[in-house]
Amino acid sequence: MRRILPLMTGALLGLSTTVANAAEASFADAQASDPARLQWMVGAPPPPERTLRFEDGSYFRFPAMRWSVANFRQLMPTINVSRGLGASTALPRRLDPRIDELRVVPNGASQALTWRQSLDATYTDGIVVLHRGAVVYERYFGVLKEDGQHAAMSVTKSVIGTLGAMLVAEGTLDAQAKVATYVPELANSAFGSATLEQVLNMTTALDYSEDYADPTAEVWAHAQAGNPLPKPKDYIGPRSYFEFLQTVRQRGEHGQAFGYKTVNTDVLGWVIARATGRNVAQLLSERIWSRLGSEQDAYFTVDSIGTPFAGGGLNAGLRDMARFGEMLRNNGRYNGEQIVPEEVLKTIRQGGDKQAFAQAGYSQLKGWSYRAMWWVTHNPDGAFMARGVHGQSIYIDPAAEMVIVRFASHPIAANAANDAVTLPAYEAMARYLLAQPGA
Amino acid sequence: MRRILPLMTGALLGLSTTVANAAEASFADAQASDPARLQWMVGAPPPPERTLRFEDGSYFRFPAMRWSVANFRQLMPTINVSRGLGASTALPRRLDPRIDELRVVPNGASQALTWRQSLDATYTDGIVVLHRGAVVYERYFGVLKEDGQHAAMSVTKSVIGTLGAMLVAEGTLDAQAKVATYVPELANSAFGSATLEQVLNMTTALDYSEDYADPTAEVWAHAQAGNPLPKPKDYIGPRSYFEFLQTVRQRGEHGQAFGYKTVNTDVLGWVIARATGRNVAQLLSERIWSRLGSEQDAYFTVDSIGTPFAGGGLNAGLRDMARFGEMLRNNGRYNGEQIVPEEVLKTIRQGGDKQAFAQAGYSQLKGWSYRAMWWVTHNPDGAFMARGVHGQSIYIDPAAEMVIVRFASHPIAANAANDAVTLPAYEAMARYLLAQPGA
Repeated sequence: MRRILPLMTGALLGLSTTVANAAEASFADAQASDPARLQWMVGAPPPPERTLRFEDGSYFRFPAMRWSVANFRQLMPTINVSRGLGASTALPRRLDPRIDELRVVPNGASQALTWRQSLDATYTDGIVVLHRGAVVYERYFGVLKEDGQHAAMSVTKSVIGTLGAMLVAEGTLDAQAKVATYVPELANSAFGSATLEQVLNMTTALDYSEDYADPTAEVWAHAQAGNPLPKPKDYIGPRSYFEFLQTVRQRGEHGQAFGYKTVNTDVLGWVIARATGRNVAQLLSERIWSRLGSEQDAYFTVDSIGTPFAGGGLNAGLRDMARFGEMLRNNGRYNGEQIVPEEVLKTIRQGGDKQAFAQAGYSQLKGWSYRAMWWVTHNPDGAFMARGVHGQSIYIDPAAEMVIVRFASHPIAANAANDAVTLPAYEAMARYLLAQPGA
Repeated sequence: MRRILPLMTGALLGLSTTVANAAEASFADAQASDPARLQWMVGAPPPPERTLRFEDGSYFRFPAMRWSVANFRQLMPTINVSRGLGASTALPRRLDPRIDELRVVPNGASQALTWRQSLDATYTDGIVVLHRGAVVYERYFGVLKEDGQHAAMSVTKSVIGTLGAMLVAEGTLDAQAKVATYVPELANSAFGSATLEQVLNMTTALDYSEDYADPTAEVWAHAQAGNPLPKPKDYIGPRSYFEFLQTVRQRGEHGQAFGYKTVNTDVLGWVIARATGRNVAQLLSERIWSRLGSEQDAYFTVDSIGTPFAGGGLNAGLRDMARFGEMLRNNGRYNGEQIVPEEVLKTIRQGGDKQAFAQAGYSQLKGWSYRAMWWVTHNPDGAFMARGVHGQSIYIDPAAEMVIVRFASHPIAANAANDAVTLPAYEAMARYLLAQPGA
């Protein structure tokens, strides 16, 4: 059990067990790995080779993972993010059939793909493009349906970062205060001496590796702590996200370099819970989801004591994620209400410390920065992104008045595997929409 | 682990571990056991003595159980019953404040309660009364909110029975066919030689005890099979509901006596899945939930291979359950559509075999019968009920044009513990509403 546990729980972070050998591996293409075609969990009972389970890790092996990312709820305990009971906000539809033929030239490629081909090339499960608030493109693949929910993976971080920045803007949280002010239990951990702003911008200096290829990396212990299944009898480690966070040690000086580490968001979730008396699922419902006119409840996976996984546990409907993005594109205003303070959007769009970011060495994200758990392109359009493993993204391009939300199940976890296609595709869409006649 | 397992999984059927000594036990009253007041799972982290977990059974001990029945999703894997994405059906509101003072005389009591007092006396979590389709009374207690979902327990059976009767009415299923025709795997079990009608009316003759006071009763093995947690290493029993059902043996002759046994509904769920290619969660969404104009998704708990628990795993919003009841009161017509064939309602209201029912010896339900998994009162109003342990009920009184849905968390599982109050209360409400001026 002990050996299996890290693998299965790693999947909670969206860690494909194949990542280590990703470069050499070859994977079935989008059609051949289509989870609807492979009929996972179909039948009464499903045949054993099509039965996916959480406990043995089978649910997160590729291509089975393509079913699981649209069905986390069937695998684990979860907590709802209520949409409330009001009417949903209408999303006007002006579908543009020409988009499928849009030319996309992947970085480093000599040949162009069509937009439609780019979706298959990156194992897209669902994608929606809003232009000036209207749906101009929307497609679902595999087992994701319009009334389904898909794992947002680390897009979750940007949602939690938005909540954190809201609380800062409103004065409930002080960005310059030390984390230990809010969560005394973290005083002796690396986070104790970090400011909330350093956590929000992930410039904490942590002795913590998210290198999934390394079996001794701390990320495995994090996943094991957060696994909601009963622990093995001889397990003596931390038993919840909160217990784990207290074990993270400092290495280096806070505030110097960007280091993308999930635990920062979990700490932010803890601070938010302490400051508001609500866990992030409750607060997200109250402050954002129920105000967007969402169509569906969203949900978080939880650990064994009911803690929503702030670092990566959100699952939501594609269009609701688009409503969230559209609200941010409109500087926090949506559905007749200022949902997120305008100041928060000003902060995010302004971006973070480019030099700190550069030290992390993302070769495809040169010139970018990270702020309030958002990825900021600093391109001429002022685009900013939420990014999650296996290809999840919210891409907001203010100049093009465009929001793209994409759910995917790329066999390789790291977005480096799809950025070469998806980033040029988003750019191409922006150029196309910018060329449309004005409203 | 083995000793604990039956207890924790028994709770899936709504079996309080205190049932055995219920008669002698005394319980904290509704106020003292109020789950909001006791602050289960509140805090980051919640204090250990307020942390509820599935694996150790803590979640289903009274009074903690009062939190859990409104939060099953946080404890277990589940599958959605999608409401679809359409607008919800408006439920007109004509709240009547006089109802709180309505007199209720419990069976065998010398003193009357007010309606309001009757709710506390029976540990009500939420109750809604519809008269002629309008909400005349609606209250939530404890941790249940209007946008929350509550365990329906065996009210689930009536929902599945309705689906089964629909498929019979439409000719998809043949009530006279043997179960083995649809599910060959059941050929050698007790169900193999039973007709679908006998399953629907629970007149199968089963060597199966649901006596929770008996640790050797088959109900514990059923619960253990359906438990979604990893099985203990030395476990050799059935690992899913489907595997368990194949082990049930016949005792006596089918068709002679009513025997209320959860496994009949699980068998019906299996037959439905085979006949339609959809599990009961998917079919319920498609055929009913998405057509009612429901406000919320409902959900089922699932076993380790994703089988929705047809015998008792439905969780839903209070008002959506009321929409379901109102649709049935209107002979299957609701929201501008004939959702359930009229013939199904004719069948249910006509009731089942009273003599077969009498043999089961329910002293408070004299003269009743059971048909298509509904409890039929045969009272002058033609009332019929869905009933689930700990006090869940849908009470439909056609003459009074009334539907009552009640979610509760009575410390004693068996409805015998609340019938003496709730049945007279429902009757009193019917008399009160019958005396109202006509529409």
